[in-house]
Amino acid sequence: MSQGKRDPVKEFEEIKEYHSRSSGIFFEFDRCLCCEQSTYQKIEVINNPHFGRVLFLDGLVQTTEKDEFFYHEMLAHPALVTHPDPQKVLIIGGGDGGVLKEVLRYPIKKAQLVEIDSHVLKVSKKYFPWLRGCLKDSRAEVVIADGKVFLKNSNQTFDVILVDSSEPVGPSVSLHEAAFYKAIKSRLAVHGVACTQLGSPFYHSEAISKVKFFLTKLFKTASLYTAPVPTYPGGYWCFSFLSDGLDPLAIKRNPPPGLKYFSQDIHRAAFALPNFLKEKLKES
Amino acid sequence: MSQGKRDPVKEFEEIKEYHSRSSGIFFEFDRCLCCEQSTYQKIEVINNPHFGRVLFLDGLVQTTEKDEFFYHEMLAHPALVTHPDPQKVLIIGGGDGGVLKEVLRYPIKKAQLVEIDSHVLKVSKKYFPWLRGCLKDSRAEVVIADGKVFLKNSNQTFDVILVDSSEPVGPSVSLHEAAFYKAIKSRLAVHGVACTQLGSPFYHSEAISKVKFFLTKLFKTASLYTAPVPTYPGGYWCFSFLSDGLDPLAIKRNPPPGLKYFSQDIHRAAFALPNFLKEKLKES
Repeated sequence: MSQGKRDPVKEFEEIKEYHSRSSGIFFEFDRCLCCEQSTYQKIEVINNPHFGRVLFLDGLVQTTEKDEFFYHEMLAHPALVTHPDPQKVLIIGGGDGGVLKEVLRYPIKKAQLVEIDSHVLKVSKKYFPWLRGCLKDSRAEVVIADGKVFLKNSNQTFDVILVDSSEPVGPSVSLHEAAFYKAIKSRLAVHGVACTQLGSPFYHSEAISKVKFFLTKLFKTASLYTAPVPTYPGGYWCFSFLSDGLDPLAIKRNPPPGLKYFSQDIHRAAFALPNFLKEKLKES
Repeated sequence: MSQGKRDPVKEFEEIKEYHSRSSGIFFEFDRCLCCEQSTYQKIEVINNPHFGRVLFLDGLVQTTEKDEFFYHEMLAHPALVTHPDPQKVLIIGGGDGGVLKEVLRYPIKKAQLVEIDSHVLKVSKKYFPWLRGCLKDSRAEVVIADGKVFLKNSNQTFDVILVDSSEPVGPSVSLHEAAFYKAIKSRLAVHGVACTQLGSPFYHSEAISKVKFFLTKLFKTASLYTAPVPTYPGGYWCFSFLSDGLDPLAIKRNPPPGLKYFSQDIHRAAFALPNFLKEKLKES
């Protein structure tokens, strides 16, 4: 069970992420594997005895080897089990490859990953083996570009668009604005669906409420869903399901085998929102 | 959104809870309101700018003013909305009064709170105003006793029994054993239901699996359900719903108004378990 007191066997260094101005999560680490500044952000990878490798961008946890499946499964599978025939998938952000790994479990034709920061890809390829696996798959294509610019210049449409942005500070700021969501809508095929991460219902309900306000105007269906993510603020995360034709609760297929969190039951359950978030959404 | 960097306005002290041996949660505090050692455990209350008052027993977070509703609502309401006519309710542990507060929202006849440590009650009365409110309610009765001994010596039966234990170290160790669950069963009225907290699915799935193994033998229905609890390990918690007659998904009444997390939709959703926990349960 949980360890109130530590076992002081070894001297570790410590890295913290503040979730509020006076609280947060800490990780001790035996090895700092990477600490570099790219054009866009500070990229750090540590090795924590419990979580394994942990990727930070500008000091915020992006993924860990041990709990990555919660977030990556819940961003990818709700869209992929509800689309009638997903063939072309676009991932914006997600340079650590976790969402791409989930997408490639399906018999799709092509998955494009558009990541602004080539250094995130380089570092992730080195420290998160799942990305190396994905890049050997001929259906996967990586584009180094700003997601917003890519959408603007593209004449393709996609069955599924997944936005794995970081927080709306630094290089991801434009990925949380109405103009970006309009660009997503313009690149969705008929029966297309987009899912995006929206932050922590516990910490960011105000921001979620503001985004939901314009999403509701933009899409026929703009539903929110939630999932636990142990290393994200509050251990509890919110996502959007955006479509002009699909019902988020009309599941079209079984998810692929081997998933650790997602199932059809979890899918349906995820759309039940807590009262405090429903109240906050009404205020917008 | 989340605060990767702190605002170094003020010097705070810091208290940590390790969730694994090398990671966990930290709280800065401007005031330590209480730090005392009772016969049973170390009791601490701090004031954190974000979470308000935070109660620790032997270094483990029990409750905070800001996020208490997740845990207390999810321990109390699933039993109370599924029982056909809850009149007599027993709470074992829960000296902070959070579960009692939820129970008293219903038109029950009597709620007994059996807490082993009178100091927890004394400290909670001082620092968590909801407990003071509860104790003014003539339907509430507090008994200072070991829950296991109370059950053994009691000749009463209860419609609903809620076990708000702390971790299975220190004074709560016997509240996680088969003998204790047998004692609960013996004090449940016909159509009775007991709910207990079982720990974090992410950190304690092995322990949850062991408990579930004997619960399944003991009760006709021994279902697990989960909920987010931001300040508990993994931000994600597991509970048991135990009954010889009730179906956990057959909701009998609307929950009382004013709840922040629980609703009928959340109730149904909570029983959808993640694949990794279902796999772990199969191993037992």
